[in-house]
This record gives sequence, C-alpha cells and structure tokens, in this order.
Amino acid sequence: MDAQVKPHERMAKALAGPLAEVDALIRDRMASRHAPRIPEVTAHLVGGGGKRIRPMLTLASARLMGYPGPHDVHLAATVEFIHTATLLHDDVVDASDRRRGRPTANLLWDNKSSVLVGDYLFARSFQLMVETGSLRVLDILSNAAATIAEGEVLQLSAMSDLATAEETYLTIVRGKTAALFSAATQVGGVIAGATEREVEALFTYGDALGIAFQMADDAIDWMEGTGKGVGDDFRERKMTLPIIRAVAGSEGDDRAFWTRTIGQGQQQEGDLARAAGLLERSGALASTRRTALGWSDRAKGALESLPDAPLRDMLRDLADYVVARLT
Amino acid sequence: MDAQVKPHERMAKALAGPLAEVDALIRDRMASRHAPRIPEVTAHLVGGGGKRIRPMLTLASARLMGYPGPHDVHLAATVEFIHTATLLHDDVVDASDRRRGRPTANLLWDNKSSVLVGDYLFARSFQLMVETGSLRVLDILSNAAATIAEGEVLQLSAMSDLATAEETYLTIVRGKTAALFSAATQVGGVIAGATEREVEALFTYGDALGIAFQMADDAIDWMEGTGKGVGDDFRERKMTLPIIRAVAGSEGDDRAFWTRTIGQGQQQEGDLARAAGLLERSGALASTRRTALGWSDRAKGALESLPDAPLRDMLRDLADYVVARLT
Repeated sequence: MDAQVKPHERMAKALAGPLAEVDALIRDRMASRHAPRIPEVTAHLVGGGGKRIRPMLTLASARLMGYPGPHDVHLAATVEFIHTATLLHDDVVDASDRRRGRPTANLLWDNKSSVLVGDYLFARSFQLMVETGSLRVLDILSNAAATIAEGEVLQLSAMSDLATAEETYLTIVRGKTAALFSAATQVGGVIAGATEREVEALFTYGDALGIAFQMADDAIDWMEGTGKGVGDDFRERKMTLPIIRAVAGSEGDDRAFWTRTIGQGQQQEGDLARAAGLLERSGALASTRRTALGWSDRAKGALESLPDAPLRDMLRDLADYVVARLT
Repeated sequence: MDAQVKPHERMAKALAGPLAEVDALIRDRMASRHAPRIPEVTAHLVGGGGKRIRPMLTLASARLMGYPGPHDVHLAATVEFIHTATLLHDDVVDASDRRRGRPTANLLWDNKSSVLVGDYLFARSFQLMVETGSLRVLDILSNAAATIAEGEVLQLSAMSDLATAEETYLTIVRGKTAALFSAATQVGGVIAGATEREVEALFTYGDALGIAFQMADDAIDWMEGTGKGVGDDFRERKMTLPIIRAVAGSEGDDRAFWTRTIGQGQQQEGDLARAAGLLERSGALASTRRTALGWSDRAKGALESLPDAPLRDMLRDLADYVVARLT
C-alpha cells in the first residue's frame, strides 16, 4: 500500500479547488486586526503539516452528494478551526512539547497564548458556521464541540484508573476523535441537502472512521517501526483499549504490575518492555487490532447506500488506510 | 448610596422569576452524563457569589422592550456560560489562586480541568443560542466571543509595554469586559423584536457600562479602603489607564522608575508607594476617574430613547453604581 498514492493524497488532488478556497478562508479568518500573535500561533499549527483529513471529509461528503459549494468551504474551515483550537488546548493539558515532530505552540510562545488563541479560533469557527445560515449545521457542530470537551474531561478523570470500562474508552474516543469526524461528514451531507438516510450514513461513516483511526493509533503506540515513539500512552498512564484489555485479563503478579505502573505511576527501567510483552501475550493487542478493523468495516459498510462515485471510493480507501498500519 | 438597596439587588428582585429560570437552566445544562468533574467545577464558579450582572442585563433589556420570554432566559444563561468559561480560562492565564475571596478552580482542581471545562461551557453556550433559532443572536454572540478572546490576547502582548496607547487599552477593555456587556443588552433587544435604533441604544448602553465598570476597577486598584488589594495591576505589570497616563506624562527619574518597575519588572520595597504617589500627583488617577464618569454618562444617555419604565431606572442607577466607588 505504501508504494501507492495514499487515499488522502488522492482526495486532496480531487478536491484541490475547494481545498485551496478553504486555505484562503482560513488565512483570512485567522487574521486579527488587533492581536498579531493570533495569526502567528495559528499559522504555526495550520501550516504544521497536518493532513487536513477533517476539512476534506466535509468537502468530500458535500460533493459526493452533489453539492456545488460554496458553503461546504465555510464548514470545512470551521471544522479545521475547531480541530486547531482543540490541538492548542490539548498541548497545554498534556504539557506536550512536540507535535508532528515540531515544537508545540505552548513551548514556542506560552500556555497563555495557546489557551487564548484556541478560544479565538473556537469563536471564529462559530462565526463561520453562522455565515452558512443553517441552524441544523450549527446544532450539529455545537453538539460536537460539547462532546469533544466532555470526552477530554472524561479522559482526564479516567487517567490511571485501572477500572476504566471499554464503554468509557469509547466515549473518550468519540470525544477526542470521532465526534469531529462524524460532524464533518454529517454537515457535508446537510449542506448538500441529502436525505435523512444519507446524512445518517455519512454520520455513521465519520463516527466509525474516527473510532477505527483512534484505536489504530492506540495499538500503534505499542508497535515498533511505525514512526511513533513506543509506549507514550504507558508513560502517560492513559487507559487505552490495549491496556484496558490487558489489565482486565490480568491476575496475581501481572495485576500488581499494572497497579504499580499505571495505577500508582511508579515506573522503572524494564517496565515498558514487560508491559509490551503482557499486551502481546494476553492477546490484548491482537484483539484491539481486530476491533479497529471491525470499525473500519463498519465505516465502509455505511458508504454502500451512498452514490457510487470516485469520491466514495476514496472515502472507502481512507477507511482501509487508517487501519493499514495494523496489518 | 451604601445604605440603600444596590441597583443590581433591586434588579434581581424585579427579575426574580426569570432569574430563577436562568439558574434552573444553568444547573440543567452544566450537567454532564459522562464527566462528573464538569458540574463540580462549574458549580464552584456559578455558586461563587457573582452578582449575575450579565444575565440580568439580557433579561432587563428584553423585558424593558416588552418581551414576555422564554428565549431571553436561554440567552441570559448563554451569556453567563460564556462569562464563566472566560473566568476559568482567565484564572489559568493569570495563574490566579483567588477569585471573589475563594480559591480558584485551577487551584482546587488543576489547570487542565479549568481549560477543558471552560471549553465545555463555551460549547454549551452555543447549544443554548442555537435553541433560540435566531441567526442574528448567534451572529452577535459569536462576534462577542471572538472580541473577548482577541482582547485577552492583546492584553497579553501589551503587558509591561510602556508604549501601550489609550486606544489599545480601550480595545482590551472592550474585549475583557464591554463586549459581553454590550452583547448581553443587544441580544435582549433583538429577541424582543425591538427596532434597530432601540437595539443600537441597548448596545451603546452595554458597551459604555462595561467600559465605565472596567475603568472604575482599574482606578480602584489604586484606592485604599475599597475592599480590593492595592496595586495588584502594578505588580502584574498591567498597562491600565491610570498607569498609561502617568507613564505618558513622566520624564527623567520618574520615567526611569516606570521603565524599571513595569517595563523590566524589577520591583522592590517602596515602589508601590512611589507609583501610587506618581499616579496621584500626575493627575492620572483623577483623569481616569473623570473618563470613567464620562462613560457612565454615555451609558445613561443611551437609555433616554428607550421606554420609561422601572427597569430603565434600574439600568440607569446601575450606570451610576459602577462608578460610585470613585466619587
């Protein structure tokens, strides 16, 4: 698969026109007449090598349903602004110093700027939505924004809690990833005037894609040679699905190991290797992979009721791509 | 004046019915099915002894213009949620440990919770607005949210900058205080179906009231016996109007004093007393008082074109009250 052009790259090519309009709109709206620090901080992130999956999901959904523009461009920029705002706040909350291999805004400027510029982009995203004149779209995106924040708070309280249930994990994943994916596809359908069933299918696709994407990310955290640092979630004591499943099936010494390293946060040399071994032997990693593939299948299944067109093929390939590193 | 019932207390009595509905709506919407920390943090602030000026401004404006409800209640709750979200983020940005004499949320929980619960309340406020079905209201409040964040970022970059212009100060004050006051009164008029001229008058009242309120606050920071700690802004190197005017008129030793204490942040014992003396002698404090009184007059003037009713009298008295501590 790596030898081929990746699906999001093909999508970027197919949507090059509206995507350029999204970029122009983002540049225009991240400006501030009074506070030059706002576009500085924003440009660092917007130009920071993201794949722009979310705005493409909106454009692809709208155009697949026959919409000629222009309000999908506003919505795509909205979605990217919400995403950028959450990245700024996430990096403050996680005290991160790197994102996509580059220093984070909170490191380059400070936490204050990250909090306030995030607030600004969030407000700007609402201004953009209001311009579409669609109350339905405003309803979907304001609900998504609430779900995102709720998921992040839940992740904070579930941190290092060994009793975290899979259902809680799913709520967290919907908050941190899937809610914006599904809102992105759903508003694309709404603005295109798609039927309720089609909008529902687009929602299901985005939701399942986001969950598959995040589960794959949580599994990849344990896999060598994927370009990500191994064990970041273990060090941060995040209760991801592989860990939840390994802990749930553990007894005796192994259980005590998880209590010490995740529950109490006392980690020492050799612990990461032992954790990785437990995840492999318990089957927790393999079963997480299977679950992620199941969500990817669900995403592809939702597309079947939608128009047969090249954009649909790319959305289907994207659902394969997000879990491809697992197989 | 202290012996009498304060205008915001009379207003709370006159608006007791809808205000109770606002409280019930806030309690209902600050709930989170998944993350109990959200209502905990929110309740700490919402129950934290605020005067609820902003939601009362919305209710009073709507009812003065003959609106019987119920959407002014949604808008009043919206305004209070936006205000609470900005307080949570402000306390993180300022690293504050006390607000209204009680420990701040960032101290009781942590910065992470304050950032994320603030985001949640912000999203909730947009959900509430969407329920009113008024795109005009959404436009006004999303613009206000952007102005607030922009003003806060500007305040951050103007901090300790001796060259800060009065115009910049006014932009900051509109962001941190007046934008939400004027949006609160304006949406009250809009939801009541008031004429453009009436909506404009309500906007002007809220804007001028907010500016008078903030200028009074910045002057009071230098006055003994007002119940506030003296010189907080000096220690935080904030370029408030009294300091801007004192610095602008300073020369020689005095100028060097401001450069050292505010510009470079090297403050030592005795500096606060010297700063207070300079503010008094230069006339900067007296002229700030006069400017604040001028904005209070402007707020009262805007009310003249609105219906002559007890609520209008209370709004007028409120404009007197916010600057009363200065005289």
